[in-house]
Amino acid sequence: MYRTHNNGELRASNTGATVSLSGWVQKIRNKGFMVWVDLRDRYGITQLIFDEERTPKDMMEKASGLGREFVIQVTGTVIERESKNPTIPTGDIEILVSKLSVLNTSLTPPFTIEDATDGGEDLRMKYRYLDIRRKPVRENLIFRHKVTMAVRNFLSEKDFVEIETPYLIKSTPEGARDFVVPSRMNEGQFYALPQSPQTFKQLLMVGGMDKYFQIVKCFRDEDLRADRQPEFTQIDCEMAFIEQEDILNTFEGLTKHLLKEINGVEIGEFPRMTYDDAMATYGNDKPDIRFGMKFGELNAVAQHKDFGVFNNAQLVVGIAVPGGNSYTRKEIDTLIDWVKRPQVGALGMVYCRVNEDGTYKSSVDKFYNQEDLAKWAEATGAQKGDLICILSGDTHKVRTQLSALRMHLATQLGLRKSDEFAPLWVIDFPLLELDEETGHYHAMHHPFTAPKPGQLELLDTNPGDVKANAYDLVLNGNEIGGGSIRIHDKKTQAIMLKHLGFSDEEAKAQFGFLMDAFEYGAPPHGGIAFGLDRLVAILGGQETIRDFIAFPKNNAGRDVMIDAPAPLDKEQLTELHLKLDLQEN
Amino acid sequence: MYRTHNNGELRASNTGATVSLSGWVQKIRNKGFMVWVDLRDRYGITQLIFDEERTPKDMMEKASGLGREFVIQVTGTVIERESKNPTIPTGDIEILVSKLSVLNTSLTPPFTIEDATDGGEDLRMKYRYLDIRRKPVRENLIFRHKVTMAVRNFLSEKDFVEIETPYLIKSTPEGARDFVVPSRMNEGQFYALPQSPQTFKQLLMVGGMDKYFQIVKCFRDEDLRADRQPEFTQIDCEMAFIEQEDILNTFEGLTKHLLKEINGVEIGEFPRMTYDDAMATYGNDKPDIRFGMKFGELNAVAQHKDFGVFNNAQLVVGIAVPGGNSYTRKEIDTLIDWVKRPQVGALGMVYCRVNEDGTYKSSVDKFYNQEDLAKWAEATGAQKGDLICILSGDTHKVRTQLSALRMHLATQLGLRKSDEFAPLWVIDFPLLELDEETGHYHAMHHPFTAPKPGQLELLDTNPGDVKANAYDLVLNGNEIGGGSIRIHDKKTQAIMLKHLGFSDEEAKAQFGFLMDAFEYGAPPHGGIAFGLDRLVAILGGQETIRDFIAFPKNNAGRDVMIDAPAPLDKEQLTELHLKLDLQEN
Repeated sequence: MYRTHNNGELRASNTGATVSLSGWVQKIRNKGFMVWVDLRDRYGITQLIFDEERTPKDMMEKASGLGREFVIQVTGTVIERESKNPTIPTGDIEILVSKLSVLNTSLTPPFTIEDATDGGEDLRMKYRYLDIRRKPVRENLIFRHKVTMAVRNFLSEKDFVEIETPYLIKSTPEGARDFVVPSRMNEGQFYALPQSPQTFKQLLMVGGMDKYFQIVKCFRDEDLRADRQPEFTQIDCEMAFIEQEDILNTFEGLTKHLLKEINGVEIGEFPRMTYDDAMATYGNDKPDIRFGMKFGELNAVAQHKDFGVFNNAQLVVGIAVPGGNSYTRKEIDTLIDWVKRPQVGALGMVYCRVNEDGTYKSSVDKFYNQEDLAKWAEATGAQKGDLICILSGDTHKVRTQLSALRMHLATQLGLRKSDEFAPLWVIDFPLLELDEETGHYHAMHHPFTAPKPGQLELLDTNPGDVKANAYDLVLNGNEIGGGSIRIHDKKTQAIMLKHLGFSDEEAKAQFGFLMDAFEYGAPPHGGIAFGLDRLVAILGGQETIRDFIAFPKNNAGRDVMIDAPAPLDKEQLTELHLKLDLQEN
Repeated sequence: MYRTHNNGELRASNTGATVSLSGWVQKIRNKGFMVWVDLRDRYGITQLIFDEERTPKDMMEKASGLGREFVIQVTGTVIERESKNPTIPTGDIEILVSKLSVLNTSLTPPFTIEDATDGGEDLRMKYRYLDIRRKPVRENLIFRHKVTMAVRNFLSEKDFVEIETPYLIKSTPEGARDFVVPSRMNEGQFYALPQSPQTFKQLLMVGGMDKYFQIVKCFRDEDLRADRQPEFTQIDCEMAFIEQEDILNTFEGLTKHLLKEINGVEIGEFPRMTYDDAMATYGNDKPDIRFGMKFGELNAVAQHKDFGVFNNAQLVVGIAVPGGNSYTRKEIDTLIDWVKRPQVGALGMVYCRVNEDGTYKSSVDKFYNQEDLAKWAEATGAQKGDLICILSGDTHKVRTQLSALRMHLATQLGLRKSDEFAPLWVIDFPLLELDEETGHYHAMHHPFTAPKPGQLELLDTNPGDVKANAYDLVLNGNEIGGGSIRIHDKKTQAIMLKHLGFSDEEAKAQFGFLMDAFEYGAPPHGGIAFGLDRLVAILGGQETIRDFIAFPKNNAGRDVMIDAPAPLDKEQLTELHLKLDLQEN
């Protein structure tokens, strides 16, 4: 037996006990006549002591020879420490070692195994197994486990059944790119890895399983943006014989449960906001409502004067920055430069100070008097001491720009507190979304989302106006879940696919099995999927999903630790009936 | 709201209540003046009643027009049944319907949705979503969920952490064939899907995570035998700072817990048997010990006479078939034909009847007297009324043949009872296994398994004799789990890979990251993996894993429901830098 206790559990009450411990050497302090070793494992740190008076000479030497990250096993007696360390749970005791075995040595690690390491991102990823020894990474992985256990137990108790759906499925050109898997046994044919178990969970509803969930890996071969992974994990859920209200209540319940169990935070009923309202109020379909700075539309109060910029704009809209009147001219210029960066893309920014005496001072005083500006303050909710920032232009663009500014300012002002949680349902999403480049509409959620009852006819005349019973769960400015009520009859599904540009043949080839299934008594159904990586990061009060994934890939989709992907043997390619088609050839 | 109750929960105590139910039409009995409908959902069946006296005419007509598998919603009053049905939990009541909505119609299903369906395997797989509506399939999937929840909760409570390891990893030629995934972003390079998370779980041990598990999909591109799936699920586990004894105890605990929680069966300490003993006693490293028929080696008592067949054999070995003396000559001839089939491959079978009066009658009475035969009976444990079946030849082959006969007879005799559970640890597996074709040794478990302490040197001289701390958990004649203590130092791992025929370059290219990791303080560790599909089938008292998988593939690796795999668009191939290399070209 390698240990009787772990390194996090011994207390003063264990004094006198003979114990065995195993772990890694975190730190050695050698005073010659006395050697202290901090022994670390997953559960904590325990101090070992060797001293001239009580420790045999050969063991003193052995202890002196230990290095950082050596793996050792000790037996010894728990004794009370002379100088206690109140910062760790085992700080009242230390182990007077009577037996020391070195189980394995270690090279000097390429970065320090400390909470604040000196290792850069690349080095940490290459030696991820050492990074995981660091408490913050380790705790994140354990935290993730706690969240998934809480999810599974909550849903199980509510009669949901976790059902594994296949990973080797069929490629569909709709949506993002699939990762594909050549089939050796079926020459010239390929499986695809699922972007989500969408069609399978719908078939389970047709199969009568009525409450399904699965915590499942999904795959998207996208050009990776920062903090996206080619493989990611979803909490995938579907219910039959339900309406939107049932889904919202069930998964609001799950989210409340997690916030309470995991974060100890009790939250009342989640607010709900239509997509249209979210766009008008926050310029964003996943607004962070931990703070205010709601949009104030100013068309009515700003387009009656001679300021051409505003008069020619589709939308004039502002936000009141709390305490923003304290900004210097230079600070405001910095903000203006910020919104003019290509990533944001505004042409400029009008501002208006609300002085402590209630007067206004704007950058466009030439065109607007105090009375005009008072209306701006009213529309944006600006108080004395605030700064109103105003953008104008094309409605969609200007909302996106002002939303970016709002988030930027909130971060600057410290309003995005990681221990504060503000969930929100955004509902009534449009069914379709116009692709500006191609001029075609595509499904905003996915091709299986049902239009709102009675709106099917609108598809022909005003496709952009059709709304769906589609909903997102937003937490602290992140979409953590999204779903919809699905189509459950073949005719509607066929109409939908046609509007999305599928020919009858394409529809049949790709989704024929689903449309066939709809002919055999498909029940009304709908569902939701949560992005687990993101959910866990937010509950953990952090930003980066990579820190909650044991072995993440970098932005080029590479695992730098195992060095994957990698070339294949020629024989393997031949067996798979494939040849490389490299650009150099 | 589609329902106030499900179809399995209403009882006599609900009489008088107004309820709403939804589900599928299981059965309609139409007597003209009265219509009964069995309404089905996941939870059960509830009888609906429509009658001339109490039901409006238009609703009577609507009810008469319902077809099998129509999806309907009803509101009505719970009333006591006149003729109760004690075979279902809701059999005391029926619903007098006041409102009936058809939510969806159904074509006539291609097979009956009954416990014993008229649908063949192929049809059931093509319409798997209808097959899942059948109670046996549905209950199997729910059963699987219960098992995984029990596993997760048991291990979680014991401080195991479920950690997701990556699915897009690197191909290694060792072992079975990998499924591979071409990388679009890394031209000419491929990911592989994991055959198991073996190296990652070991790296988690190096990372200090000390108790890991994961219920995880694994992939093997093998030529499929019956009841194998290209994707399968593993309960993958690993522990650090442990010895074999710790692993056996922990996972014996898990298995006992499952047998108790899931099957209500309490089982004491699991027997343990060395691999050598299992081979000698049962001719098999996964013996079914629900019944006896242990091997009796007869070399000592059968090789002293003039029977050349036995005298020239490496091994003469028999089993006593309980009650087998009742077999007719014809039945025995059928057994002899059975062992001579090419799949078994014996050249013949000697037998000896043990008569009720204690005398013997063998097929080789010419060579052996009653005294000789009494010794055979003693060695095989044969009792009065038994039949001793004896095979002879090359030790390894004859054991395999007699093991096949033993299993065949046990099945015939009804000794393999699906509600009886006989677990067994088989331990001390050989480290290496000789590939008869190539004459090379390969790893019996995998290349990361540690030889038993002190046996490393034997690798050079007697590689076949080296034993490992490798163990299988066997249940009812199936290997449900297997694992080993791993190598945790670079030097031993290098020696091992060299013996398995890896050049230094190959070893470094494929496992360099693991061997590097061993240089930074790798702890002693080991683990085990359970085949979940098989485990669930056995606990469920069944043979076929496919019946416990929602969407299984057929023996050609195809999903006949979605028709995968399938050809890819040319554009997709081009993007992936690939060309087909078909045999026709």
